[in-house]
Amino acid sequence: MPRKTIYRLSIYLRCLVRLRENGIGTVSSEALAKAAGVKSTQLRKDLALFGNFGTRGLGYDVAELSAKISGELGTSRLQPVILVGVGHRGFEKEGFEIVGAFDLEPNRRRDKKVALPILGIEQLPKFIAEHGVRMAILSVPAAVAQEMANKLIAYGVMGILNFAPIVLEVPEEVMVNSVNLAIELENLSYFIQS
Amino acid sequence: MPRKTIYRLSIYLRCLVRLRENGIGTVSSEALAKAAGVKSTQLRKDLALFGNFGTRGLGYDVAELSAKISGELGTSRLQPVILVGVGHRGFEKEGFEIVGAFDLEPNRRRDKKVALPILGIEQLPKFIAEHGVRMAILSVPAAVAQEMANKLIAYGVMGILNFAPIVLEVPEEVMVNSVNLAIELENLSYFIQS
Repeated sequence: MPRKTIYRLSIYLRCLVRLRENGIGTVSSEALAKAAGVKSTQLRKDLALFGNFGTRGLGYDVAELSAKISGELGTSRLQPVILVGVGHRGFEKEGFEIVGAFDLEPNRRRDKKVALPILGIEQLPKFIAEHGVRMAILSVPAAVAQEMANKLIAYGVMGILNFAPIVLEVPEEVMVNSVNLAIELENLSYFIQS
Repeated sequence: MPRKTIYRLSIYLRCLVRLRENGIGTVSSEALAKAAGVKSTQLRKDLALFGNFGTRGLGYDVAELSAKISGELGTSRLQPVILVGVGHRGFEKEGFEIVGAFDLEPNRRRDKKVALPILGIEQLPKFIAEHGVRMAILSVPAAVAQEMANKLIAYGVMGILNFAPIVLEVPEEVMVNSVNLAIELENLSYFIQS
């Protein structure tokens, strides 16, 4: 399934979760599309992948559609994630669980409490093997990001969420998603100037 | 200029800054393309926008190219940015300056030191007007994100970097870039499972 479809399914799922929290049992494709910020033709096309189970005039059953999308995304089988490069960043409340935190300076004094004990980089291979870790959040300085990515991949990590402002070189079977706040702001800045 | 081109120019600029820091004066289009993670045909096409100033066999002058891209991106005219919704997040070291921080609960006890005084939401209109703020990082819970975005836009904000896991509805002239770590991880998770 294309990457963009998977992103949209994640967004639909979040909208559906909020509908359930608000006690709403059915939703029209128009209302769900609006909440997700997509065209309703796009939404219907995406959801057609799950078979035709919307009822004309009634819309989608929120619980049923949530279950189908969850099943497809595989979020019921939650992947354990590690954080490499702790800095002062707080990741606790992002809606996923981090099973291990690692830093080049595990004992550096930090401004904030970190929920997990911070382990040294030398403990990575053992931890990854023991916990079956396949995903890592890489939040280290640009200068060491490639080296650290190489290590993670050698130890068995297959997916990296990269915060370092560089383009990682990885083998084809490894997936990298990048998040760079400075670039996002620079981009906004350009468009509001013009 | 298309949004994707602007993203690539931001990335080229970051690569060039690193080259300068390492004392490198010229770079070939192949080497720069590799560092930026794009095809060299793409890079040459993007840089042709600035006229043909690469020298065959010598490559690009790092300082000159940096200056041209900076000029185009307008990052010399740095936009003041405010942070709305402080939580426990640390934004200090992301490569941009935040001139104001706001929260619904400015006096809540926080785990970490926040460099700026945290102001109440009622102080937003005055602050935005006085500081000529046009960009905001919106990092509030999903339930209040749309309402807060409406306020920011009413007060004059034209660009929003949105961390809330919802799609904001904004007027056409307002620009929104969204960052959602849970969706990025979910996306990674899907692809490494399959």
